[in-house]
Amino acid sequence: MFENKNDQQTPLSDLGEFALIDHLTKHFKVGQASTVSSIGDDAAVLEFKDKQIVVSTDLLIEGIHFDLSYMPLEHLGYKAVVVNLSDVCAMNAVASQITVSIAVSNRFPLEALEALYSGIHKAAKYYNVDVVGGDTTSSTRGMIISVTAIGSASKERIVRRSGAKPNDLLVVTGDLGGAYLGLQVLEREKEVFKVNPNNQPDLEPYTYLVERQLKPEARTDIISLLESLEVIPTSMIDISDGLSSEVLHLCKSSKVGCDLYEDKIPLDPQMMTTCEEFNVDSTTIAINGGEDYELLFTIDQSDFDKIKGNPNLTVIGFIKEQSDGAHLVTRSETRVPIEAKGWKSFNA
Amino acid sequence: MFENKNDQQTPLSDLGEFALIDHLTKHFKVGQASTVSSIGDDAAVLEFKDKQIVVSTDLLIEGIHFDLSYMPLEHLGYKAVVVNLSDVCAMNAVASQITVSIAVSNRFPLEALEALYSGIHKAAKYYNVDVVGGDTTSSTRGMIISVTAIGSASKERIVRRSGAKPNDLLVVTGDLGGAYLGLQVLEREKEVFKVNPNNQPDLEPYTYLVERQLKPEARTDIISLLESLEVIPTSMIDISDGLSSEVLHLCKSSKVGCDLYEDKIPLDPQMMTTCEEFNVDSTTIAINGGEDYELLFTIDQSDFDKIKGNPNLTVIGFIKEQSDGAHLVTRSETRVPIEAKGWKSFNA
Repeated sequence: MFENKNDQQTPLSDLGEFALIDHLTKHFKVGQASTVSSIGDDAAVLEFKDKQIVVSTDLLIEGIHFDLSYMPLEHLGYKAVVVNLSDVCAMNAVASQITVSIAVSNRFPLEALEALYSGIHKAAKYYNVDVVGGDTTSSTRGMIISVTAIGSASKERIVRRSGAKPNDLLVVTGDLGGAYLGLQVLEREKEVFKVNPNNQPDLEPYTYLVERQLKPEARTDIISLLESLEVIPTSMIDISDGLSSEVLHLCKSSKVGCDLYEDKIPLDPQMMTTCEEFNVDSTTIAINGGEDYELLFTIDQSDFDKIKGNPNLTVIGFIKEQSDGAHLVTRSETRVPIEAKGWKSFNA
Repeated sequence: MFENKNDQQTPLSDLGEFALIDHLTKHFKVGQASTVSSIGDDAAVLEFKDKQIVVSTDLLIEGIHFDLSYMPLEHLGYKAVVVNLSDVCAMNAVASQITVSIAVSNRFPLEALEALYSGIHKAAKYYNVDVVGGDTTSSTRGMIISVTAIGSASKERIVRRSGAKPNDLLVVTGDLGGAYLGLQVLEREKEVFKVNPNNQPDLEPYTYLVERQLKPEARTDIISLLESLEVIPTSMIDISDGLSSEVLHLCKSSKVGCDLYEDKIPLDPQMMTTCEEFNVDSTTIAINGGEDYELLFTIDQSDFDKIKGNPNLTVIGFIKEQSDGAHLVTRSETRVPIEAKGWKSFNA
């Protein structure tokens, strides 16, 4: 017989579904006033009084949305939560609850699920959301994660994709392209590892980029900032598929066009030097690279003074009539039509 | 080159993710007053005024929860919705919105997703719920469906698993074991088909059982009935994993025991004759077979007159002290401890 090298690991079949859920969720505490009752019944019960509720959901599949060969399970759990909270932010709302469903094949021991839930727990704690339900089941292959986020805002503060109007300013938070480039760094290291498993990767020069990929954050701070600045965007979306794809969504929903200035797109210095190293164009990466989870929004020009000079916010263009189309104005002042080159799920 | 026999089929890569979602959801209309805005933004917006909200979620995996060799895609879509609405019923609440996320591998053409969504659409229409969001993505293998249901009820009407008290009556809706037996019939036909693909299955004698398996319904009618009878159960759960498993959940959450009478368990005549044919014990099937999606609830004895004689409701036992344990009282008046033998996800 082969020796079991993983004899410290616990097969999931030792627990059974209900004991497993109990075990994984026992540290989840209810912190939101709107959570009336949580895990342990057929459904969670929530109460929001006079607020409007926002609901967002995402399905993450191993081999499509994440690669466990360089994504530690704890980071994956954290990121699965962040991706959904980012959608709630994009409505200018505040998330308060999530449900998390996980399916895993027999290859995952209990300890793997514990690591995943540890990341979920960290994110829930950091963002002050209650985990109020979910499902834990087996899969025939790989890991599948489904997260649904629930948040709320007063009716007046909710921002949709559809409210942008000509002359509004186009604003982006943080910097772009880092998460995509972080993925390229990790994939390169994976290839090196395949050739020489003794090679220890030196990720030091890419710390920021790798962190952008492995541990993105939802810009809940921007929602608070906008409230304190007394700014309600006219439209908003989060950047999950890449700036070009998202700006087109915004224009389509709002029935407008836009001019987006290449030289205004915020880039991190590490991102720029790594683009040089990889011999790729930083604007292409910043525009088409996904997973930055920054916010893209439009504001009325009269609000410009309120956001001016804030290091978190960069005006990258302005809204035009729909008939004008959506263009990138390059450094050489050429106007190039914007095309969505974001990640297309079914072309893989 | 091989001839493409499926040249009427449309590969999903022809559409891309966003066009696919648009295509599949274009027939979904908003019908609920509580749906403020639906598909097409980062999140749906809902408003419930002074009601409490219930949220329930389920993840269904091909090869674990369903087998496409005998489950038509339209039925699967319908069932995926029903399973979640049943959880909302079990809170004595009324569902109003669902989100639906689907992941499929390249082996599914557009027409397969259309059939699936047609079933989702039928269920949403029949149960009067709005599909307000979701996600459509690719998987490395097989089909994955994640549904989240949102419903509401006034605070006073919400029923949890935890409210049963000694001397309450234990009530079940409909009849039990049919869905499990329907699955056995379908699996037998699948084996016959493998041996002789020309053999046409005669499912006529099993119509009811097969329908219980392929097209279960959520007992929303019972929620209306209880309201019109002016009965609020003291505790409630839906029967997805089998009566024995669910009664133990109820007893554990309520910290009580129970006596459940074998001769009171409601069985359909077709179920009984098929049990004889398969040479299996009908009580075992009724107690341990899952997926009936009936409701199990407890009521105060003072409410007995209100439910007495209703053909939808059967009193099958009563609640005892926790120290008395949970027992099945057999036809021969033997008391057998109830054990959960429901479907255990990780033992597969």
